Amino acid sequence: MKNLQQSENKKLQHLLSIKGLDKKIIEEIFNDADKFLEKKDIKLDDYTSLNGKTVCNLFFENSTRTQTTFEIAAKRLSANVINLDIATSSQSKGESILDLINNLIAMSVDIFVIRHSEPGIPELIAKNIKSNAHIINAGDGNREHPTQGLLDAFTIREFKKDFSNLKVAIVGDIEHSRVAKSEINVLSTLGTKEIRVIGPKALMPSNINNLNVNVFHTMEEGLKDVDVIMMLRIQKERMSNKTVPSESEYFKSFGLNQERLKIANNDALVLHPGPINRGVEIESEVADGKQSAILNQVKYGIAIRMAVMVMMIHKK
Amino acid sequence: MKNLQQSENKKLQHLLSIKGLDKKIIEEIFNDADKFLEKKDIKLDDYTSLNGKTVCNLFFENSTRTQTTFEIAAKRLSANVINLDIATSSQSKGESILDLINNLIAMSVDIFVIRHSEPGIPELIAKNIKSNAHIINAGDGNREHPTQGLLDAFTIREFKKDFSNLKVAIVGDIEHSRVAKSEINVLSTLGTKEIRVIGPKALMPSNINNLNVNVFHTMEEGLKDVDVIMMLRIQKERMSNKTVPSESEYFKSFGLNQERLKIANNDALVLHPGPINRGVEIESEVADGKQSAILNQVKYGIAIRMAVMVMMIHKK
Amino acid sequence: MKNLQQSENKKLQHLLSIKGLDKKIIEEIFNDADKFLEKKDIKLDDYTSLNGKTVCNLFFENSTRTQTTFEIAAKRLSANVINLDIATSSQSKGESILDLINNLIAMSVDIFVIRHSEPGIPELIAKNIKSNAHIINAGDGNREHPTQGLLDAFTIREFKKDFSNLKVAIVGDIEHSRVAKSEINVLSTLGTKEIRVIGPKALMPSNINNLNVNVFHTMEEGLKDVDVIMMLRIQKERMSNKTVPSESEYFKSFGLNQERLKIANNDALVLHPGPINRGVEIESEVADGKQSAILNQVKYGIAIRMAVMVMMIHKK
Repeated sequence: MKNLQQSENKKLQHLLSIKGLDKKIIEEIFNDADKFLEKKDIKLDDYTSLNGKTVCNLFFENSTRTQTTFEIAAKRLSANVINLDIATSSQSKGESILDLINNLIAMSVDIFVIRHSEPGIPELIAKNIKSNAHIINAGDGNREHPTQGLLDAFTIREFKKDFSNLKVAIVGDIEHSRVAKSEINVLSTLGTKEIRVIGPKALMPSNINNLNVNVFHTMEEGLKDVDVIMMLRIQKERMSNKTVPSESEYFKSFGLNQERLKIANNDALVLHPGPINRGVEIESEVADGKQSAILNQVKYGIAIRMAVMVMMIHKK
Repeated sequence: MKNLQQSENKKLQHLLSIKGLDKKIIEEIFNDADKFLEKKDIKLDDYTSLNGKTVCNLFFENSTRTQTTFEIAAKRLSANVINLDIATSSQSKGESILDLINNLIAMSVDIFVIRHSEPGIPELIAKNIKSNAHIINAGDGNREHPTQGLLDAFTIREFKKDFSNLKVAIVGDIEHSRVAKSEINVLSTLGTKEIRVIGPKALMPSNINNLNVNVFHTMEEGLKDVDVIMMLRIQKERMSNKTVPSESEYFKSFGLNQERLKIANNDALVLHPGPINRGVEIESEVADGKQSAILNQVKYGIAIRMAVMVMMIHKK
Repeated sequence: MKNLQQSENKKLQHLLSIKGLDKKIIEEIFNDADKFLEKKDIKLDDYTSLNGKTVCNLFFENSTRTQTTFEIAAKRLSANVINLDIATSSQSKGESILDLINNLIAMSVDIFVIRHSEPGIPELIAKNIKSNAHIINAGDGNREHPTQGLLDAFTIREFKKDFSNLKVAIVGDIEHSRVAKSEINVLSTLGTKEIRVIGPKALMPSNINNLNVNVFHTMEEGLKDVDVIMMLRIQKERMSNKTVPSESEYFKSFGLNQERLKIANNDALVLHPGPINRGVEIESEVADGKQSAILNQVKYGIAIRMAVMVMMIHKK
């Protein structure tokens, strides 16, 4: 299969998944994001590098938070941003997604940021468009959420530098989480020493044994000696589905509190993609504590998204 | 009656309808749109020509697609764009439209883009405001949708150059379509040789005989020898109203398929204002075929709207 | 209690209420607003003074009109503006307001414009954030709406120059109106000779006697000799609550018509925060008459909000 994400000369055409993305591109995105965090080599006109370009947020599944991060990132680069409210758009008039995309391309949209509840929709679009427009997957079903994976790994790099010595645990509903998939893929590509997943059996994907991760079903075992703890947001819908017993039961077994944090290494870093359910998957003392890098993730997320968009438009 | 659209020195003050618009102004809009398609004479600062100006989208009838085209056009000219969600605005607090407009003028809105389900509302507003603000009608009931008419004629000009030898057929629900009215008016002003309308009797306006068009009730007769076929979107509401029998019945009688396309001239151009109902008024093979200029219309629509806005603000 | 609004060197950090705001700062805001009305000392780059800054509208209580004024003001200063639709945001996922704000600060939001139905929320946020972000209260319950108070006083200053000789009457539902509270506070700080409130007993706040205003229960008494009449919008909800008898009853007792206007001084100025209920609290002849400054208020409101935002960002 042709690699849709990278052009023949290895440049970033679309960002659909971490899977299949070269380590070299990931590291280049990280280096560019560093610039936007104003550490080095920043030039004034970097902030006008998307001037005259149009970025279109197409969220078929509502997420004000994620949409806002892309909107802020694009506007900070001087792009024109169009937020399409799909619920009230011609989608309801029965227009197909591809017709909608082709119309927007005709209006000269340069970058589409797409979230959809169905896995593979961003890829399907990337396959079918006839133009040089770029697709960024902002979450497709339970498959991937690549910019989240990138910003998580970038946050780890900021604090831990090297991945080759790290033990990292991902905690929660692995099966339904696109964030977990992107995290596993990015950590794997970057050569992380050990990737662990911790969660109830009912929330492990059936192919978990092919993912090159170590599976744990208790926090007590799984957190031992880890350098990074990546919590996942528990979807409250799962509880009404009875897949997960109840909020308090879940917290009792898999919630991260001060005591459990001590099982990990002393300087273990705590991440969470947000928004956090305080007292459900994480205790406030930990979320707001000195090992938490949760707000750093949000900050770095803007820089990562700026870097991705600039790379797509300018590094061809 | 005073011509509201044009100032005394023949400049474009408002765009309310194609009816009453000088051929000279239409041709000037086309020439300016040509520039924005980057064919000739484009200057860099044309893209900042609405810098500091405010364009307000006031859609009392929802249309994400049309609103997006105006938003993109205005932002590409560096205007500030305000999208007012009327449903949730003070309209629901009982504020009158004129009070709302006068308030927005006090906030220094320069151009209003207005869609309303009632014919004549944009004109009513243009008549009553006391300021130099500009009104663009983005569709008023079944009356007119002038920028759509302009972009349709512009698309024809791109492919066919001269109108004086053209036979053009407009197909569908003529009575309820503001697009059809604007198309008839613009084609007429530009001196089109023959304008035909094709559709069931129930969907012809009562004054059709005064419109200087030839009326047909079958595709087989109406498409013979035409150079351009302008399809209209069928409103699915009509079918539940029983005005139109059913989707499949409609397609059987008035849908454009490959076979019927052959009745027209060999190089006949196919247009549609979008979003298309595939398999209802037009077959996919035709909509995506080599005679289709449907996506060209979308592209040219941005340039036309840019040209209209620049003309209003700068050519006084 | 520490003054949250002003930094130690007396600069404007937040705008939470007129109460506690120095007269000197109010006058400085007025002078800066004057500039944006293009009267004097305007420099071209004043219009890019928020370039690269991000202003976030967080309206927990819907108000398209007020939100639009802040959006226009911020965009006119070249800021990036984010309008968060709270109803559909992660608020509905149970995220706390402070978590939401801290996330947005991590995304580098510089100014938050906050409206909330509960009094004191903007202050609570200002107290708890750990950053240099600025909070503007755009209305908190029945407590304050400081930019409205400022623009009202600014409008009076434009027409009447000096406050020390003015008699000003505020008419309507004083108890539930945040506008009335901010008006009383700003007029008081600016040294207005006499502040009157006029309204039914049921709509007077219980602490009215501590507010240093004179209370009247009829228009005939209250309007005598006044120089400025500030009408309030009557909330129609009050009538279904039976707090106010009916629209026509209310208009009969407290509506401002031509005849009552004559009770006041000849050149008395008429203000209203909008949107007006024609025929309920004010007659059209008065609202549109030559003593009305209602549309001036709207215009000046943009300049006041520009001045406040520039002061927060640049005068530190």
